[in-house]
Amino acid sequence: MARRAAAAARLLRRPGPLAAEPPVRGMPHTEYEFASRTVNSCRRFHWIPSLQRPPCGPRTNVETYEGQHSANKASEVQKRTFGSAATHNQRNPAYSELNSDDVCYFKSILGDNGVVQDEDRIAVANVDWMGKYKGASQLLLLPKSTKEVSKILSYCNTRRLAVVPQGGNTGLVGGSVPVYDEVIVSLAGMDKIISFDNVNGILTSEAGCVLENLSTFVENEGFIMPLDLGAKGSCHIGGNISTNAGGLRFIRYGSLHGNVLGLEVVLADGTILDMLTTLRKDNTGYDLKHLFIGSEGSLGVVTKVAVLTPAKLPATNVAFLSCNDYTSCQKLLLAARRNLGEILSAFEFMDHHCIDLAIRHLEGVQNPLPASQYKFYVLIETTGSDESYDKTKLEAFLLRSMEDGLVSDGVIAQDISQASNFWRIREGISEASVKVGAVYKYDLSIPVEKLYDIVEEMRCRLGDNAEVLGYGHLGDGNLHLNILSSKYDDSILTQIEPFVYEWTSAQRGSISAEHGLGLMKAEKIHYSKSTEAVQLMASIKKLLDPNSILNPYKVLPQSVL
Amino acid sequence: MARRAAAAARLLRRPGPLAAEPPVRGMPHTEYEFASRTVNSCRRFHWIPSLQRPPCGPRTNVETYEGQHSANKASEVQKRTFGSAATHNQRNPAYSELNSDDVCYFKSILGDNGVVQDEDRIAVANVDWMGKYKGASQLLLLPKSTKEVSKILSYCNTRRLAVVPQGGNTGLVGGSVPVYDEVIVSLAGMDKIISFDNVNGILTSEAGCVLENLSTFVENEGFIMPLDLGAKGSCHIGGNISTNAGGLRFIRYGSLHGNVLGLEVVLADGTILDMLTTLRKDNTGYDLKHLFIGSEGSLGVVTKVAVLTPAKLPATNVAFLSCNDYTSCQKLLLAARRNLGEILSAFEFMDHHCIDLAIRHLEGVQNPLPASQYKFYVLIETTGSDESYDKTKLEAFLLRSMEDGLVSDGVIAQDISQASNFWRIREGISEASVKVGAVYKYDLSIPVEKLYDIVEEMRCRLGDNAEVLGYGHLGDGNLHLNILSSKYDDSILTQIEPFVYEWTSAQRGSISAEHGLGLMKAEKIHYSKSTEAVQLMASIKKLLDPNSILNPYKVLPQSVL
Repeated sequence: MARRAAAAARLLRRPGPLAAEPPVRGMPHTEYEFASRTVNSCRRFHWIPSLQRPPCGPRTNVETYEGQHSANKASEVQKRTFGSAATHNQRNPAYSELNSDDVCYFKSILGDNGVVQDEDRIAVANVDWMGKYKGASQLLLLPKSTKEVSKILSYCNTRRLAVVPQGGNTGLVGGSVPVYDEVIVSLAGMDKIISFDNVNGILTSEAGCVLENLSTFVENEGFIMPLDLGAKGSCHIGGNISTNAGGLRFIRYGSLHGNVLGLEVVLADGTILDMLTTLRKDNTGYDLKHLFIGSEGSLGVVTKVAVLTPAKLPATNVAFLSCNDYTSCQKLLLAARRNLGEILSAFEFMDHHCIDLAIRHLEGVQNPLPASQYKFYVLIETTGSDESYDKTKLEAFLLRSMEDGLVSDGVIAQDISQASNFWRIREGISEASVKVGAVYKYDLSIPVEKLYDIVEEMRCRLGDNAEVLGYGHLGDGNLHLNILSSKYDDSILTQIEPFVYEWTSAQRGSISAEHGLGLMKAEKIHYSKSTEAVQLMASIKKLLDPNSILNPYKVLPQSVL
Repeated sequence: MARRAAAAARLLRRPGPLAAEPPVRGMPHTEYEFASRTVNSCRRFHWIPSLQRPPCGPRTNVETYEGQHSANKASEVQKRTFGSAATHNQRNPAYSELNSDDVCYFKSILGDNGVVQDEDRIAVANVDWMGKYKGASQLLLLPKSTKEVSKILSYCNTRRLAVVPQGGNTGLVGGSVPVYDEVIVSLAGMDKIISFDNVNGILTSEAGCVLENLSTFVENEGFIMPLDLGAKGSCHIGGNISTNAGGLRFIRYGSLHGNVLGLEVVLADGTILDMLTTLRKDNTGYDLKHLFIGSEGSLGVVTKVAVLTPAKLPATNVAFLSCNDYTSCQKLLLAARRNLGEILSAFEFMDHHCIDLAIRHLEGVQNPLPASQYKFYVLIETTGSDESYDKTKLEAFLLRSMEDGLVSDGVIAQDISQASNFWRIREGISEASVKVGAVYKYDLSIPVEKLYDIVEEMRCRLGDNAEVLGYGHLGDGNLHLNILSSKYDDSILTQIEPFVYEWTSAQRGSISAEHGLGLMKAEKIHYSKSTEAVQLMASIKKLLDPNSILNPYKVLPQSVL
């Protein structure tokens, strides 16, 4: 208690503003050293003045990225990025082959500009950003309205032409590109904002709007999008919803199932399903929109969306901390939930292998806590409405956490640049991983208390054959497991798979926390879902898309369809 | 600006604790008078010390209530509570009639105690708490496990015996009682808490747990349930989820579609659908659980649930304010979202007719702002992790709102008793309404800017024939419209309906914001949902329950089934 009092006294003697004083912008850097129960090196806590926007700036990463890479870079990446091999089905002969009459029909409804047959343009749409999945479509359609989407699907359904709906094409599991010769229906031409209710923060837009454009728009109105991801410069809101994108604001604003208020969807037979309500509450019948959130375009094409956007809060703080063991990381998460409660906006963790890698491979990246080596690092972000109160709250929380021995060392960003640097470490891990050679990437949901076990088990299994990194959204129980080796090697893959899926399944975890199943993991759904559930999914697929024209070979195993 | 400075100066001279000082519990009542731009009566702001739990105490109301009334009281209530007349279908002759072999079979799987034929006990389960809906079931089954529920449904499906699943039987639309002779399957015997993850706040329990018991349990662990409603002493968590209950924490924690992580559901044919994940993120296939959230037991029987519970925050403040016009209420909501952001936990509004009624009919209820008459009243609650900061934040917000002319007068509760009194006014409106004679109740979602128009239009339509009250969860765009007259009168009903539904439909509103459709509004779904959407709902119903044994005559119009 005496130590706590001493630490608190030092904290309260600080030259910065007190809670009762107005917040000072652009205040000078100040550094505080805290005493703590454990003998420890100096603890640095810097404050970052209120940021006009989250300090995550232009993100070049990440797990959720990535689409800004052009297809030209694909081959380079292809050599280095590996994971589960895609299941190679045979082309389903039930689908018709495209002919010139089809093209004529599409031109009659979309005009010449809406029907793309140019090889170079189609080539870009045929391949995912990683260059891992590549189809052989001969036709890219660019509808400008829901009615046009409806006419396309109605025709394709009658003609049994398979279709792949495409948004920003930024996915990681091969969900947004053709497998064979499916017609690509891009929503890029449907990019209008329809309305914004600036009392309730409800945005209604077409599905092809780029997330970053929507973010900019609502931020000018004093709101923020409830999701943010590295791919925001390319990904479409329709694609975000169709894949139930998670991303960096999940811990604070939760899932899109909670934030999407309404959808307009075109079904496989061309039926336009108007569920575009902007109401927060509506208990009239089954809430059908949820079927289309996360079904990866296999049940219908999302054409319009209504999203609840939270008020933009002006004060953001970012802290970079170290912990001696994984148990401390967990306890710190619990304490943060309790003490930072309503202002906590990110809780990301990395093991020291991640930091080492980022420092080795990324230009300008330094460990903000260089004094000694720690096993784990945690990035905490708070976002609130009042800078001085939030600041004091975070400071008090960190002080307590150090006294309790949960945190070994820590720094608080003092300006936007520092905050961006902290985020750069976390977000650079994926980029740095690719530079090693081959990277086997897994995106797992695992109960938090067991989340790091798989990293350690994998390290034991692989020994010197590979480097194993564990990091991710600890606050959401979402681990990103990256396994690095100098080159791709089947013997390493067989040591990883199916072990990683079996282990996750045994913990009742999810083999895809946020990336979806796409083509990559369609046949692996049984690791996370019961036979009865998969059967029901198949029945719903057959009900909504009896000719199975929408995004074939993906999401569900072929055996159940 | 000079006025603002003066007001702020007076505020800062107050004798209460400053933000930087530790919170003082049990502090004496203090009263502050604020200057403001408009000439106005004194402004009182009292503080309530940190509450250990929300000051909403035992609630005896409300829109969401009610179930503690016994069926014995039903006849008394029946005389006074009216709304849409239930649609009276004919008994569907496709259903079998119960025979002694059926009873023998149920006894063989449930034992004698699980099969209730006692007339008095069945009578209670046959009628809803309002006494408005009454069935003629001859059999009440009390399974103790998912397996037993599965056996019951499998048998009923084969025998074509209609079934009504029943939780706490606290609904307001006749969804939880038989219409004819359906077998009642009560989940009351499945009331065990299965596990609680106290790092992540994830509760797993059987569906028959009473909400209040779960609340008490998780509060002892430092968490709260993400929903709270007047009926919490009776309603079951399975029923809450099956009806997508809204309630008093909706503005803060959002819909159950965001808070329910997993479900176990038994389908009509007895298939047990295990979706009981406790993961925050899981993008493996279609998220089927959402089909069962809000489908009112017509697609399956929820047997187990996993719910995300937020950390319990210690500091609660309640303010009772008045506004001169509805536009000010809206602006105040917007300002509260922006300035109280992360600590705002309720924003309820009432017109002055509500207050007058509550004072007239409820013992001990007084207007906390008696100085003069205002047109509108708003109750604001904040909940946060740090009392002194939250307090200062609320105080500053109210000061600004008064200076901006949004708030005419206001009081802040100084202790739990005052806070409860404020809530008592809001929650007593429903109770007071019933005392007038007949009450026609509507639960509507309407875009906030138009929400009060229907109240005024209705007042014009009805003139002196009835008293029209408007109140509700303004933060969620949810209006409770109560129309009172001395006795039930068909001529009044025809002035109200279908006008109220047509008007709501024209605003793209919802004719049932949180109560559901049940029997009362099954035939009215078209006012809020498109023909295509209702058709798809019917297809899904047929897919999951081809013999239509689950909760017949409800949710969907008979014509589409």
